[in-house]
Amino acid sequence: MSMTNEQLRQLLIEGTPEQIQDAIDNIHPADILDIINNSEEDLNIILPKLPNDVIASIIEEEEDEDKYNLLEPFLKERQKAILEEMSDDEIADLIGELEDEKQIKEVLDNLDSENQDNVKQLLSYEPDTAGGLMSTEFISIHSNNTVLETLWYLQKYAEQDAKYYLYVVDKSKVLKGVIALRDIVTSSFGTKIIDITNPNVKTLFYKDDQEEVANRFIKYGFVMMPVVDEENHLIGVVEVDDVMDVMEDETTEDINLLAGVSGEERVDSTVLESFKSRTPWLIVNLFTAVMAAAVVNQFSATIAKVVSLSAIMSIVTGMGGNAGTQSLTILVRGLSLGEIDHSNAFKIFCKEIMVGVLTGVIIGVIVAIGSMFFAGNPYFGLVAGLAMLLNMVAANLAGFIVPVILRKMNIDPALASGVFVTTVTDCLGFFFFLGLATLFLPLLR
Amino acid sequence: MSMTNEQLRQLLIEGTPEQIQDAIDNIHPADILDIINNSEEDLNIILPKLPNDVIASIIEEEEDEDKYNLLEPFLKERQKAILEEMSDDEIADLIGELEDEKQIKEVLDNLDSENQDNVKQLLSYEPDTAGGLMSTEFISIHSNNTVLETLWYLQKYAEQDAKYYLYVVDKSKVLKGVIALRDIVTSSFGTKIIDITNPNVKTLFYKDDQEEVANRFIKYGFVMMPVVDEENHLIGVVEVDDVMDVMEDETTEDINLLAGVSGEERVDSTVLESFKSRTPWLIVNLFTAVMAAAVVNQFSATIAKVVSLSAIMSIVTGMGGNAGTQSLTILVRGLSLGEIDHSNAFKIFCKEIMVGVLTGVIIGVIVAIGSMFFAGNPYFGLVAGLAMLLNMVAANLAGFIVPVILRKMNIDPALASGVFVTTVTDCLGFFFFLGLATLFLPLLR
Repeated sequence: MSMTNEQLRQLLIEGTPEQIQDAIDNIHPADILDIINNSEEDLNIILPKLPNDVIASIIEEEEDEDKYNLLEPFLKERQKAILEEMSDDEIADLIGELEDEKQIKEVLDNLDSENQDNVKQLLSYEPDTAGGLMSTEFISIHSNNTVLETLWYLQKYAEQDAKYYLYVVDKSKVLKGVIALRDIVTSSFGTKIIDITNPNVKTLFYKDDQEEVANRFIKYGFVMMPVVDEENHLIGVVEVDDVMDVMEDETTEDINLLAGVSGEERVDSTVLESFKSRTPWLIVNLFTAVMAAAVVNQFSATIAKVVSLSAIMSIVTGMGGNAGTQSLTILVRGLSLGEIDHSNAFKIFCKEIMVGVLTGVIIGVIVAIGSMFFAGNPYFGLVAGLAMLLNMVAANLAGFIVPVILRKMNIDPALASGVFVTTVTDCLGFFFFLGLATLFLPLLR
Repeated sequence: MSMTNEQLRQLLIEGTPEQIQDAIDNIHPADILDIINNSEEDLNIILPKLPNDVIASIIEEEEDEDKYNLLEPFLKERQKAILEEMSDDEIADLIGELEDEKQIKEVLDNLDSENQDNVKQLLSYEPDTAGGLMSTEFISIHSNNTVLETLWYLQKYAEQDAKYYLYVVDKSKVLKGVIALRDIVTSSFGTKIIDITNPNVKTLFYKDDQEEVANRFIKYGFVMMPVVDEENHLIGVVEVDDVMDVMEDETTEDINLLAGVSGEERVDSTVLESFKSRTPWLIVNLFTAVMAAAVVNQFSATIAKVVSLSAIMSIVTGMGGNAGTQSLTILVRGLSLGEIDHSNAFKIFCKEIMVGVLTGVIIGVIVAIGSMFFAGNPYFGLVAGLAMLLNMVAANLAGFIVPVILRKMNIDPALASGVFVTTVTDCLGFFFFLGLATLFLPLLR
């Protein structure tokens, strides 16, 4: 039924513009994008043959930062024709990534004055907010019609913009309600629109952060949500596919930051991009590693007397680091899903301490017994086990406190938590272990 | 326009069933769920007062593992009435989480025989596949009608099930095409359905893994996709809200596994759940820490002669661990987003080595200079810098190879990558540093 990618590629490369035009309505632009992104050669053959509206929809599928590369090769007149097929918010996304003022001006000059104003308005919203995500393609209607009259209206004026919901607004464009297309098609023609309108609309405020937007889509399971301004005027809609892209990006960012990599790095980043993304964090980590080494150095006299301490000490710090990372990760994820608030923070805090004590006792006992046999000295085991227990509790404490404080300070908790937590577990781990060893020194030799 | 949560809570607690019935159509069940999940007391007052269809929709909003808790308190007759309002796939989700055979039988006995068969059929699909995710609420039509005839049909028979798309099937239920409701409402009444049908339908196979399902929704931006069996019969649909839940769960799982925590742990897990989730990995980590300690122990003679090695060695292993985690994280995320395949794997491999060499040189030089001044001995610096460089390259190599091999073996790369990679960087780090130190020993003292 469905064409394979190779069949599609053959058609696009060998077909005449007419043959392509006949088939193209039923081809998803994401599939064409896959093909032309795979080979520069294919791109140069295929792209110019495509109808302008298809090029526009391929540009819409492309990542924001690469959209302009698909438009740039065309002559001015063709660019203009392609831009005419694009929605204002997609043009705004394209321009939003350009840094060269000349390029921005060129694109804007290709628009007529109304679209230019719209695009400039859209560019004024922060990209990471509901306003930056929204499209202005939606249908708003008045509520005093019947289903039949509304269908006539849609047949005449709607074309593309009728997505999944229609919005009811009053004369001054204040949002009054929402109607599902599903209710339009299943209600008898004589039904009053007001009777299938839900007045209790969930709205997004244009300044809402995109993470908050994503969490609301997940909570309510919507496919589209209206965006309003301070006076509750309907100014746009956010669609779920854009939200899924946001979710994917936000999570990748969180995962990256937890590992000490910049939020933007991807598998296909260049060597230079990866180098720039990773080196700053490595250098920060180096400082904290030096701090930990300085702690060890304070106790070099102890180590010189009992060299076997040097083999065991990295177990104490390493295990603390692992436990801290565990607790930290659960907290950071909970924070970004909005699952932690005043009502449960203290409970979670107590839980983390309890878990630290429990795992500390288990791991502490194992380490104590192992170290005792390793060194042939029960006091050595006692020192190692006790240090392990203390460091595990400290690790879980840090794993809770660090991200919560960072969030309070409006810093992304994923950003720097890991460094702080492992600094704590490294420094304290060495301190507990070597400190106790120094206290018990006469018994260890 | 929209009620606040507190207003809603007041209404639900103080309102009569009639008052609630009047308001309830426009209230989102997720909001009611929030309120009753916040307080057991509210739950006991509110739930019994609600109409059965609202209780059903609240159960649908609840996490799978807690659905049954909302149904259980009711008497058998009321349970039956609530289940009648639930869709078969939601009932299957509810039953899928039950472990007690008696409970499962009780729920099934409350269904009529047709629904029982449907639910049993749905339970036969793996929960983590398209079949396990799909609902059986969709409208399939034949294509020889006009838009007007289709609207009449929908008004008469559709009610709930007309979501965003209708599906065209032939007499033996083989999927032939898809029609957007949007095209139904914007096409003139005389339009032939066949003319607005897209025959090039993107389908899901019922055995497709849910991660693959999520990636296809993201790629194509759909809100609903049809699920077919081996003979291309339409057997269900997957909706985007379920996919978003999958994305959220899969990411939380990935993030957790990368940190050595079970995929199921959440901030609101109990002490015991968290303990069970974390301890196994801590014990695995303990083994690898012991391996690393064993490497150190091999060189205790060297350390005894140059105690300052013990302060620097943890820098070499720690930095290697950080670099390995960076590279690993980028790879694991790329694998789960389906961004790595045969066509780019080698390129990424080369990039990781290059990044390892570059960061290794930078960090190696800093560590070398620092160590040189610390020990007052240029050879000490040389040993530390060289070990650092070697370990950084090894770290990036391991960060690439480990997840790729795990994926080849069909093990979730997020699951165990971290442990393997830090084992490599710890053991090799100590080995490189202390081994070189032993070679250069005469020059270090």
